[in-house]
Amino acid sequence: MINVSIAGAAGYSGAELIKLLLRHPEVKIDKLFGYSTAGKKIDEVHPSFRYLLSKEIVPFETMSLSDTDILFVALPSGEAQSIVSEAYKKNVKVIDIGGDFRLKDVNLYKKYYKHEHLNPELLDEAVYGLPEWNTSEIKKAKIIANPGCYPTSVLLPLIPLLKEKLIKPDFISINSYSGTSGAGKSVNLSMIFTEVNENVRAYKVGNHQHIPEIDFYLQKFGNVATAFTFVPHLMPITRGIYTTIHCKTNKSTDRLEVEKVYKKYYSDKPFVRLIDDGIPEIKNVAYTNFCDIGFSIAGNDLIIMSAIDNLIKGAAGQAIQNMNLIFNYDQTLGLL
Amino acid sequence: MINVSIAGAAGYSGAELIKLLLRHPEVKIDKLFGYSTAGKKIDEVHPSFRYLLSKEIVPFETMSLSDTDILFVALPSGEAQSIVSEAYKKNVKVIDIGGDFRLKDVNLYKKYYKHEHLNPELLDEAVYGLPEWNTSEIKKAKIIANPGCYPTSVLLPLIPLLKEKLIKPDFISINSYSGTSGAGKSVNLSMIFTEVNENVRAYKVGNHQHIPEIDFYLQKFGNVATAFTFVPHLMPITRGIYTTIHCKTNKSTDRLEVEKVYKKYYSDKPFVRLIDDGIPEIKNVAYTNFCDIGFSIAGNDLIIMSAIDNLIKGAAGQAIQNMNLIFNYDQTLGLL
Amino acid sequence: MINVSIAGAAGYSGAELIKLLLRHPEVKIDKLFGYSTAGKKIDEVHPSFRYLLSKEIVPFETMSLSDTDILFVALPSGEAQSIVSEAYKKNVKVIDIGGDFRLKDVNLYKKYYKHEHLNPELLDEAVYGLPEWNTSEIKKAKIIANPGCYPTSVLLPLIPLLKEKLIKPDFISINSYSGTSGAGKSVNLSMIFTEVNENVRAYKVGNHQHIPEIDFYLQKFGNVATAFTFVPHLMPITRGIYTTIHCKTNKSTDRLEVEKVYKKYYSDKPFVRLIDDGIPEIKNVAYTNFCDIGFSIAGNDLIIMSAIDNLIKGAAGQAIQNMNLIFNYDQTLGLL
Amino acid sequence: MINVSIAGAAGYSGAELIKLLLRHPEVKIDKLFGYSTAGKKIDEVHPSFRYLLSKEIVPFETMSLSDTDILFVALPSGEAQSIVSEAYKKNVKVIDIGGDFRLKDVNLYKKYYKHEHLNPELLDEAVYGLPEWNTSEIKKAKIIANPGCYPTSVLLPLIPLLKEKLIKPDFISINSYSGTSGAGKSVNLSMIFTEVNENVRAYKVGNHQHIPEIDFYLQKFGNVATAFTFVPHLMPITRGIYTTIHCKTNKSTDRLEVEKVYKKYYSDKPFVRLIDDGIPEIKNVAYTNFCDIGFSIAGNDLIIMSAIDNLIKGAAGQAIQNMNLIFNYDQTLGLL
Repeated sequence: MINVSIAGAAGYSGAELIKLLLRHPEVKIDKLFGYSTAGKKIDEVHPSFRYLLSKEIVPFETMSLSDTDILFVALPSGEAQSIVSEAYKKNVKVIDIGGDFRLKDVNLYKKYYKHEHLNPELLDEAVYGLPEWNTSEIKKAKIIANPGCYPTSVLLPLIPLLKEKLIKPDFISINSYSGTSGAGKSVNLSMIFTEVNENVRAYKVGNHQHIPEIDFYLQKFGNVATAFTFVPHLMPITRGIYTTIHCKTNKSTDRLEVEKVYKKYYSDKPFVRLIDDGIPEIKNVAYTNFCDIGFSIAGNDLIIMSAIDNLIKGAAGQAIQNMNLIFNYDQTLGLL
Repeated sequence: MINVSIAGAAGYSGAELIKLLLRHPEVKIDKLFGYSTAGKKIDEVHPSFRYLLSKEIVPFETMSLSDTDILFVALPSGEAQSIVSEAYKKNVKVIDIGGDFRLKDVNLYKKYYKHEHLNPELLDEAVYGLPEWNTSEIKKAKIIANPGCYPTSVLLPLIPLLKEKLIKPDFISINSYSGTSGAGKSVNLSMIFTEVNENVRAYKVGNHQHIPEIDFYLQKFGNVATAFTFVPHLMPITRGIYTTIHCKTNKSTDRLEVEKVYKKYYSDKPFVRLIDDGIPEIKNVAYTNFCDIGFSIAGNDLIIMSAIDNLIKGAAGQAIQNMNLIFNYDQTLGLL
Repeated sequence: MINVSIAGAAGYSGAELIKLLLRHPEVKIDKLFGYSTAGKKIDEVHPSFRYLLSKEIVPFETMSLSDTDILFVALPSGEAQSIVSEAYKKNVKVIDIGGDFRLKDVNLYKKYYKHEHLNPELLDEAVYGLPEWNTSEIKKAKIIANPGCYPTSVLLPLIPLLKEKLIKPDFISINSYSGTSGAGKSVNLSMIFTEVNENVRAYKVGNHQHIPEIDFYLQKFGNVATAFTFVPHLMPITRGIYTTIHCKTNKSTDRLEVEKVYKKYYSDKPFVRLIDDGIPEIKNVAYTNFCDIGFSIAGNDLIIMSAIDNLIKGAAGQAIQNMNLIFNYDQTLGLL
Repeated sequence: MINVSIAGAAGYSGAELIKLLLRHPEVKIDKLFGYSTAGKKIDEVHPSFRYLLSKEIVPFETMSLSDTDILFVALPSGEAQSIVSEAYKKNVKVIDIGGDFRLKDVNLYKKYYKHEHLNPELLDEAVYGLPEWNTSEIKKAKIIANPGCYPTSVLLPLIPLLKEKLIKPDFISINSYSGTSGAGKSVNLSMIFTEVNENVRAYKVGNHQHIPEIDFYLQKFGNVATAFTFVPHLMPITRGIYTTIHCKTNKSTDRLEVEKVYKKYYSDKPFVRLIDDGIPEIKNVAYTNFCDIGFSIAGNDLIIMSAIDNLIKGAAGQAIQNMNLIFNYDQTLGLL
């Protein structure tokens, strides 16, 4: 049994985290920290928690982690750094669901996140929490940088193909379609229902902050530098990311060989499902920690599709999967 | 050919007004006025107008109406009053799409709209722009108070039944369901896509500002004081209001008699359709100026359903219908 | 640990049942029965079950229940009767999620369900599975008639008020709004996305099959005959029912008294939440077994709103709550 | 003034056609033909036409075109051929909105449409109705093959770049996202609301019938053979196609040069809008005949986005644009 605290419980990822943790048989929720919601109870902020959890959100200024085994941080980029740093100093394990500790290069961080990194000394300490590819590092990590939602949907299908040199690394075309919860509780005109409903739009074409993250970890785990384009789009659904990737195979290959590669790396991974007789759909992964991967091959054109729930495999679920690894629980505990 | 100006072109009703006016064969759009959007072109604010209209929005301070035959005001409640007053002084006809001139009682106005009325002297001058029931007054009006979206969907089905004493006036139960565009460009957490999608909620139960409007005009046109409850709800669609009303018939009546009453008042009205062989649906009135009315009767329980497009029959379309009446055009001109 | 079998695993309620049962710590899924899907594996029919359950659906003809402790039946009305009867004969407890055993009067059944009841002798044996009002009967039942989704959303808010004679029983006006999953996998033109999206419509006004069910159980548990109207509507969301009820209080009462009544009956009920400082919303109950109830009072007009997830508290979740009662588990087991 | 008849008035494209034609100042609707709906009035089939058009749909067997100047055919693939042939023989101009006359190669037709072509002799007679690129041919055509919705959204952004040799023709990666109305009134499980809502899925990857159409007309108008992949997806919106294309520039180029090319070909085209200061969105083209095109360039990676309304620029609106050209009306007549 471990004591878990959460910084940033008021957002969508924070709420998802609490929902999942309440079902986890080895977890006790310790403290909830927040800025603007401090002083309120969590079931006032998220009325769906009535009768489930009625803990008060306490201000960061009073942050005590003496009984906490692990701290989840679900704060907007920039706000996580000092919190993570403080937990680190107090020797409390921390999983940052946001983007503050995923990049290793402070200049890239500044370029894409538009502000300075305040704790660059911790960047090397942070371990990228993609359980399917980084298990042993995760198990001994003090700081986990939980992967971004888009990167999760891109890295899982691409790494095995790169690692096995099945595809050309210099031509990869990635299109992702995300539901709105990925934007968090952003209150601006472009996110109100009337603007999003019955609409689709690309955004941040060429400058989304997940681009350097995809770039770095494709290389790290795929063992090769890549060139890719990434176009994120917003669609009128609440949850889910659908990613469609076009790449070129290195040589004439076939369906069977691609399947073999995926099975080699993922047949023992509980949350990556190869859809070998159909096409991934968001509805099959929504509210789960699964990443579904499917593909179609014609000549040397390989089309790959992946689907995840952005709040679970793309955020809170993957974070708990990491927690499970750290504390030597079965990685699926509380997640099925 | 008439010159039309619009105050508040940047909102959803303003945009709908422009869209409809651009198709109107007897209208030339003269000036567009705005606050925060002043200085921008209308097709910057609403990119859907590119290639259709690229007029600059000018600030109210410079409001000149010398070439304007009629001014539409599509501003939030409270902001319309001084504009309407100014147009009135300049002897320019004005149609206020908002709620500032619908109530006759300044105390009721203050109670429901939460601020003082600044031009109470004009309230008696304002004519309620419900064309099906107020044609002759509208034709000679200087100020039109365009009906609210909910009231339109309530008054049209109820007035004939009250006027013919077919229903008991003291038991009327009204439930309305509205799309989000009725809330305008309200940028707050409760209106973002993630909060509205896959959700339904009642709101302002018992204190919605349309309650005194419904009350007053039911009595005015139905010739009897009524007692009713009104519960508005928000639903995850962009456009449309669906109103379901339960009332009690005064005596044993039947389907035929109710039909007869509706036909008596509406058979010559081009925008009210009696659905005598089915049930109204929002999809049949969306993007039109129609109000569809259907009903079901069992014993002395009468269930009435009405459907309108809140931005058209509930706002911009009805305003143009009023304009047509004022300038002696066919009331359907530009609206079919 | 109990062995559970499911007849009708291919539908939406069946799937929800499996999803919840897989998380239930005291349940082992034994057999899945089906008609058209017999021979397929459950994760072919519902790809969301890949990696979770890959059991073959077996035909009813071969139905063996020798190892089954309880059978859930999630079949369309009419198809459940012979299955329930067979389970009954074999002395296997059975929970029918459909409507075949809710009414006691075969004539009413025929009138509303449009076909004869084939096992009228079992109607008296069947116990209505509304746990908040029928616990002791449920605990000893052999056949549970699980409540309909609309009735659940209507009975829970109304029974306490009737029982305490707080409202007039002869004027109750009920409007319900349902998501599409309540219609099951109905494949007809009126249910395709293009017809449902951006639309709202009432349906089966005055003749919905849940009317006699509401009527009977309001009287049974509320101890008084009632007169009400019920208008169901279809809305463009997948899950959830929102019910708004208008009724008249018997005498001058106030918010506090209504709250007291609800608390009297529900403060010890784990799945009924009184929303005393807000308004119920579907988003707060979606994917849960909760029923949220809120109200507004003005003079003797009482407006009540309730929200449930139609597939959980309105179907599969309530069925498992009943199962928990039957087997003396905590009624919340596997449902939080 | 011309007399227009429609074959297949009951579908979504047929309805959109009628809606637009009713507003067209130079059109009189003559006859409506249908199979299963023959005998019904059009406003029974589409209740939105009540009070607008109440013409009876007549069976094809009785097809008389003696007063018809032009026939629109909005039938599923395969059903149009004999109708088009008959109109041709009777010397009546015909615009086929479906796919039966777009391909020139009967073998390709059979491969992608899964049935034989019955009137191959007319394929060379048919003129592809893409007004921006084929005006002079369209003006003298007897049979117009109206472009598919996906091809319209792909050809308009790509042709200028190919024609000007700005991009490499052998690497083009196309992803398209369509609303559900593109599938017509397809009544099958995969199209019901519960399966489509909150979901996204790719479909017909590598074998969609629009692939050979895109291939042929890219080459015809772009003057170069291309190699591309095309992945269509279904999204939960009713109307609209959003297409995102990744291609490689032939040489180092810049934003300005791409703009120049688009302006060269489209500055005088009333329905193609270059979005040079933003990103296309479906909401800006919904319910219009516009195609919005935007792009982003980084190194030699060019990302292009286009948006159309699939029922208007992708079907009925483009058909009317073609009709306008044939009868020497301004091509925008009735379409703004």
